[in-house]
Parts: sequence; structure tokens; C-alpha cells
Amino acid sequence: MSKPALDIRYMKRALALARRGIGKTSPNPAVGCVIVKNGSVVGEGWHRRAGTPHAEIHALDMAGEAARGADLYVTLEPCCHQGATPPCTDALIAAGVRRVVAGMVDPNPLVAGKGLEELRGAGIVVESGLLETDCRELNPGFIKFVTTGLPHVIYKTAMTLDGAIATITGHSRWVTGEEARVQVHRLRARCDAVMVGVDTIIVDNPQLTVRHVRGRDPLRVVVDTRLRTPESVAVLSGPQAKKTIIATCETNPRVHRRYQVQGATVLVCEEQGGRVSMPDLLGKLGEMGVRTLLLEGGSRLAGDMVQAGLIDEFMLFYAPKIIGSDGFSAFALQGITTMDQAIRLRILDVRMFGPDVLVHAVPEAPCSRG
Amino acid sequence: MSKPALDIRYMKRALALARRGIGKTSPNPAVGCVIVKNGSVVGEGWHRRAGTPHAEIHALDMAGEAARGADLYVTLEPCCHQGATPPCTDALIAAGVRRVVAGMVDPNPLVAGKGLEELRGAGIVVESGLLETDCRELNPGFIKFVTTGLPHVIYKTAMTLDGAIATITGHSRWVTGEEARVQVHRLRARCDAVMVGVDTIIVDNPQLTVRHVRGRDPLRVVVDTRLRTPESVAVLSGPQAKKTIIATCETNPRVHRRYQVQGATVLVCEEQGGRVSMPDLLGKLGEMGVRTLLLEGGSRLAGDMVQAGLIDEFMLFYAPKIIGSDGFSAFALQGITTMDQAIRLRILDVRMFGPDVLVHAVPEAPCSRG
Repeated sequence: MSKPALDIRYMKRALALARRGIGKTSPNPAVGCVIVKNGSVVGEGWHRRAGTPHAEIHALDMAGEAARGADLYVTLEPCCHQGATPPCTDALIAAGVRRVVAGMVDPNPLVAGKGLEELRGAGIVVESGLLETDCRELNPGFIKFVTTGLPHVIYKTAMTLDGAIATITGHSRWVTGEEARVQVHRLRARCDAVMVGVDTIIVDNPQLTVRHVRGRDPLRVVVDTRLRTPESVAVLSGPQAKKTIIATCETNPRVHRRYQVQGATVLVCEEQGGRVSMPDLLGKLGEMGVRTLLLEGGSRLAGDMVQAGLIDEFMLFYAPKIIGSDGFSAFALQGITTMDQAIRLRILDVRMFGPDVLVHAVPEAPCSRG
Repeated sequence: MSKPALDIRYMKRALALARRGIGKTSPNPAVGCVIVKNGSVVGEGWHRRAGTPHAEIHALDMAGEAARGADLYVTLEPCCHQGATPPCTDALIAAGVRRVVAGMVDPNPLVAGKGLEELRGAGIVVESGLLETDCRELNPGFIKFVTTGLPHVIYKTAMTLDGAIATITGHSRWVTGEEARVQVHRLRARCDAVMVGVDTIIVDNPQLTVRHVRGRDPLRVVVDTRLRTPESVAVLSGPQAKKTIIATCETNPRVHRRYQVQGATVLVCEEQGGRVSMPDLLGKLGEMGVRTLLLEGGSRLAGDMVQAGLIDEFMLFYAPKIIGSDGFSAFALQGITTMDQAIRLRILDVRMFGPDVLVHAVPEAPCSRG
């Protein structure tokens, strides 16, 4: 195999390792690392959880003395600052690696190449940008946050083929089938938080937990401008209630108490147009460590978010059903009078989940920067 | 190659030949035929146009004396009745073929196996049902008509991802992009007729001709209960006006004259719920030789048709756009209050056309039989 082909092969292995950490490392990025000496892999590692060693350290530990003179492949520029753990650049230099190939430069403006510079300064051969697109896809939330201060927002909905999320009476159980619902739980397990509007809580009373697959339950964010959430709902029941955040404009601490005694957090946000300001709420969630947020409705929230350009990814499930013109729309959004004023997306791919279709799209223009 | 594998190979060739006739043979079916002698193809043919020789006759002509003792593959049971041309069974028997493999039995209840019986009676080895699904797909319109008296109806629409066919002002040019529009013209060229409601004519003034691809212009059917079609519209302009049929409940011949002088046909239909009866109109179009009908809107017509179970195929294009909750729905259909009352489809496949997605679906239960 040619040298570039070998480089790609080892970076693909580092990517596969990194993927094992997705959904578990937040607020840190998922990172994978491979160390190669004389054509053999001598060390491998991935970042498992915030506060524990980085991928490079695991790989160096496994390689031991073999790291001296070796090539190291890592999906993200090694850190050069003291965080929860010591800087990786120091460890790489001490171990005597000959060459470092990084998938991408750290997008954090405070790092942005400084780690690689430090390695170069120590005489290590440094390359960057190999399989960069794949490496970036590992950590959309981390990249979005370090460049904007906001989480990466994925909007998920389930519609009939004619665009209804519910019938005229609000009935929506179920739009899609088992396979699509499992995929939604897989999505939740990859996200730090899920978010819904208070009307969705009142009408559907969802649990918003990960059930059909193994995985960590995300934080649950309820957007509730006037604190109308009933105290008896599922997201406030049992010990899981402590994973619930109610975002509101209501400042009266006596009303907050009702939710706090159940274990939930009340987050007071700025008001914008009579409702919780989404940029403010997203910024606050970012500060709390939320890097990826799954927006699951309702339609007013989705309408506000899409209009404000705050959605980074769209996961639109379509069930093979027709409801007709009195069904509920996914986006409560009004005033678009000609087709060229439509909000434009770009479809990345289309997949079947059982009888349903998933359309995966992104905004045509990048999201507004916080 | 084993004998069954060879049979499949020759039937696939017959299918490929048959496809050359799709969109040109109506009201006849598209049929392909291959004659094989000692492992070599000695004759091939396909039906080109109603009133001209059938596929088998072309293949026999090409094979000449080589047809004696040969195997013949044909996508549809050979005819045994005198039509515009003499029965094919007589020709096959006279040519001395040894074996006939038919893709499917003729679905016409008046034939339904009689052709194959006649061949068997003459000592020919007869098999049937090879690649039957593919053979059936050649001629959905022919099959639908001979079993129900109604044309095969394909409904086509273009929506935004949130299910809008137009903005609140009725603006809809364009929802989808160039590639999807070309595909619609390809569809038109395969259909005997296209149909729209009068409001679509008034709002969009479409030509409903085949322009972006080569192909025959279909008949144009305007459903216009009260004869509101303006005389100046595109479908009534120029010599093409003679390909326009206005289906109405208005019986006054003086009003008909307005359209007839332009070359159009006025078709008086039964009234049902204050509008043109769709079963009656479809039956009349069937009698006029329409085997495949492309329904292109508007939403009231589509709502009536889907509710009556009169749509056989759905071609739903989605453009990567969001319009919001005040957009127009594809189906003007009301009164469905719970998800389990939704009209159920089955998605056959999903494809990208440029930036747009095409969802191809059929009713979950077969269409109502006329």
C-alpha cells in the first residue's frame, strides 16, 4: 500500500475508535488515536468520558517504549493546555513520537493550531487535515460550541406524507413506526439534551428518555414561558426529574419552588417577543455543558427556531400516511408569500426505517453565529 | 448457464424490448418477445403502436424458418382473438414453435389463459409466470382497465418538506428544481392523459405538454364542474387545444360551444356531491382509450380522489424548503381526527432528483375496483 493509502487506513481506524465515544464525552469532543511503528499498530485509544485521559494518552500507554520514533494518527489536534488532565503535547514530545497526523485543527479559537505548532517546535513532523470532513462529523456539537457558544441543534419530527405532525384534534400517537422510533432513541442517546415546548408536554406527556436502545438519558429541557407545566407530568416524576430543566421567563421564586421540590432546575431566560429568547436559552445551555441539543417540537418552538436560523440539522421522518388539510403543521411559521422566500435546506441523504422515510437535511446557508 | 437461468435471461431481454413501447402502445399493452433456437436468439420484437403487429409477429418475421422447434419468450400471454390484427396464437402454431414461456396470463377476463390453452392444445409446451412482477409493471394501465374499466391513476405533486404545495397566496412557481420537473415531463410522456382541476388552470395556467424530454403529448383533462375555465388559457390555445377535454356537469350546449370552437372536447359527467363524479369521469376516459392518467392537482381534486380510493400510485416530490403553517396542503381532505384513521400508503422507493426527493408510494390496500 502507498504511504497516503496507509495514512488514510490508520486515520479511518482512529475515526472508528473515536466513534465509540460519541454521546459519552460531552462537553469534550470524541477523539480517536492510533500509533504505528514499522507498519504495525502499537497503540490505540479513544476518549471515553470528560475528566478521564485523552485518546492520545491511552494510545501512548498501550504503545509504551514502542512510541519512540512512531507515527501517531489522531482525529483532532492534540491539546496543549492544562484542563482536567495535563496537555497531550507534552506527553507526545516526552514519548519521542516521530510524526503526528491530525484529522483537523482544534476549532477552538484559543487553540487553533497552537498544539501542532508546539509539536513542530519540538522537531516532530506534523501534518493536518487528513479525512477532515469525517473528523469534523464526529463532533458537530463541540465545533459549534467553541466557535459560537451555542449547542449544535438537531430538529427531529415525524410527519405524514402530507406534512401533518398531528390530526386536527392534536392526536399524534403514532405517526411513524417502531423502527423510526428506535432511531429517535438512538439520536437522544447521542445528544446531551432534548428540548420540547410546554404544549407538547401537556398534550403528549412524553418521558423523553432513552428506552429502545442502550444509552445515557439526555437532559430534558421544557420551554415554558409562563410556567404552565403541570406538576404531575412524566418529566417531573421519579428520580429522573433532576435531569429536567424548565426554561421560563417567570421570575417568581414561589412558582419556581413547585418544580424545584420535584428535583427539576428552573432556568430564567430573557424574553423575546413574549416568549423565552432562544438565543439566550441556547447560550445558557451551552454554558451548562450542552453541546448537542435535540429539538423534538412542538411546532411553535420549531417555527421560532427555524426562522431564527438556530437549527443545524433536520431529521424529518415521514410515515406513509395522508391526513389532509386540517392536520397540524410541523412549523408554526407564517407570512411566507412566495416560493423564493421559503427557508432553504440541503438534503444530505434519505433512508428508509421500516415503512417510514428519514430525510436528513441541513440549512442551505450555515446557521446564524451566536 | 442452467435452464432456469437462461429462461430468466431471455425473459429479461423480452422485458427490455417491451419497455421500448411504453407510452406508445395505448390502449394496447407494451409487450416484448424473444425467440431462441439452439442457444441463439433468432428473433426479437416489441409492440410499437396500437393497430400494428404484435411483438410475437415481429419476432416470428425475424426468425423465419428458424422459429420451427424454437423456444419463444413473451412478456404477456399471446392473444387468441381477432383484433386490429389476426390472433398471435394462430401464427405461433403455424410457425411450429416448440415451447412458449409467458411472463403473465392476460388479465382480461375474456382471455385469461385461453391463448395459452389453445397453444397447449396444439402440442406446444407452455409455461407462465416467469418474472411476472416485472411483466405486470410494464402495463399497470392496461391491467387496471381490463380488470376494472378504469384507468391506472398516478398522482403527482411537488411539496415543500413541510407539506406545502403553494404559499398562502397560491404562489407555487417553482417548488422543485429542474431535475424533478424533467422527471414530471417523462411521466407525462408515459401517460395517456394528464388531469387537473379548474382552479389549477386559473391560478397556474399550465400547458401540460411534454417539453423537457422527447415524447408524445398526453390528452389534457380539466375537471370543471361549472365551466369556469377562461377561454384564453394555454390548454385552449393553438392546434393543441384539440387534445383538451373539459369534464363538466354543465349541460347547456351554448356554453359548451365556447370550448368546442377552440377545438376542445366537452365531456358531460354525472354529478356527485356537487362536483364531477370521479368514478364516472374515469370510466368515460377509459372508454376513450385512456389507460394511464396522471393527476397533477389541485388539492380538492386530489383530496376527492384519494378519499375515494381512486389513486393507484403516488409520485410525491419534496423540495428542500420550509414554508410554514399557512401554506396550501396537497390534499383538501378533512375530518380525520386520529392517526389510525389516516389514509395508509406503502412506500416503494425513494430517490433524489437534483436537490429534491421523490417518494414513490402505492395505497396500502389495493385501489377500489370500479
